[in-house]
Amino acid sequence: MESIAIVTVLALLQLFVFAFLVGRQRAKHGIKAPAISGEAQFERAFRIHQNTLEQLVIFIPALWLFGYYVHALIAAGIGLIFIIARFVYRGSYLNDPAKRTAGFGVGALAMMVLLVGGLIGAVISWL
Amino acid sequence: MESIAIVTVLALLQLFVFAFLVGRQRAKHGIKAPAISGEAQFERAFRIHQNTLEQLVIFIPALWLFGYYVHALIAAGIGLIFIIARFVYRGSYLNDPAKRTAGFGVGALAMMVLLVGGLIGAVISWL
Amino acid sequence: MESIAIVTVLALLQLFVFAFLVGRQRAKHGIKAPAISGEAQFERAFRIHQNTLEQLVIFIPALWLFGYYVHALIAAGIGLIFIIARFVYRGSYLNDPAKRTAGFGVGALAMMVLLVGGLIGAVISWL
Repeated sequence: MESIAIVTVLALLQLFVFAFLVGRQRAKHGIKAPAISGEAQFERAFRIHQNTLEQLVIFIPALWLFGYYVHALIAAGIGLIFIIARFVYRGSYLNDPAKRTAGFGVGALAMMVLLVGGLIGAVISWL
Repeated sequence: MESIAIVTVLALLQLFVFAFLVGRQRAKHGIKAPAISGEAQFERAFRIHQNTLEQLVIFIPALWLFGYYVHALIAAGIGLIFIIARFVYRGSYLNDPAKRTAGFGVGALAMMVLLVGGLIGAVISWL
Repeated sequence: MESIAIVTVLALLQLFVFAFLVGRQRAKHGIKAPAISGEAQFERAFRIHQNTLEQLVIFIPALWLFGYYVHALIAAGIGLIFIIARFVYRGSYLNDPAKRTAGFGVGALAMMVLLVGGLIGAVISWL
């Protein structure tokens, strides 16, 4: 399961970097806590981080369930696709929020493959 | 532990559906990202998803700790109560936010039973 | 791994208390759901809970990976430092958001030690 552990850490480091970049936008535009709005680039960075957080809450358990009940290395590979898609999502969202769909879609698809695959694996293992 | 794995996936699928329904409200009312306010039904759907996310961060580890240290099938059963309570919470919140308390309360109670039960189980196992 | 399980529950209980205190501020200042702004102390409590949620999504997997691949009791000890730092963060943020840096920093450092330590442990275990 080490491959899954490594992909888990990479995804968490990505989330940490996204959070750090929100903080940098906050400082750059002088948006004082607890405010979470007031400047377009800050709001985009904030929503990118927030959305990635929402996805990771599903992604990490799904990664481990797929890795345990289906196949560890395949789970790790799909996990890497998820992480790359999140970088694409971030780049396009910052550029133009209307163009965030492709990066979002590939990431969400990878996540759903892990989640549904993990479900099927768990059900077969139970029967 | 397959029963817990299956309940985990069901709870994560529920969160995914709640997120999807936020996106649908966003499209329906023409609320462009990164905005997160501007229309009552969108804001309700947004907060329902957000609150469920907050609860899942506690619920999923609590489910597994209770399942491991106390009893797997009982954990899965309490987990199903949590998921049903979240549907009730969503329905009443959308109808009238002031009426969200019952669905919220049953879900939070189920979550606390898992969390405190898991703690007691882990402490007894340690001693 | 019982020590890690116990620290996990303590961190989740802390998050639950922070969420409960947001609800109390909501009631105290008459901020009706789904609103998430309108009063300074409510907004601070809201952001404290939100930021702790963001950190826990990284902290909990990092705690378990460090505990599994490096050392369980050391992981639990670093985890306790994280929890204490979050209380300091909350206290200083409520008092003056500009002073939240110290509590935030110690908690984030503890989290990064767990995360990077877990990564190194998993990589060594894989090789």
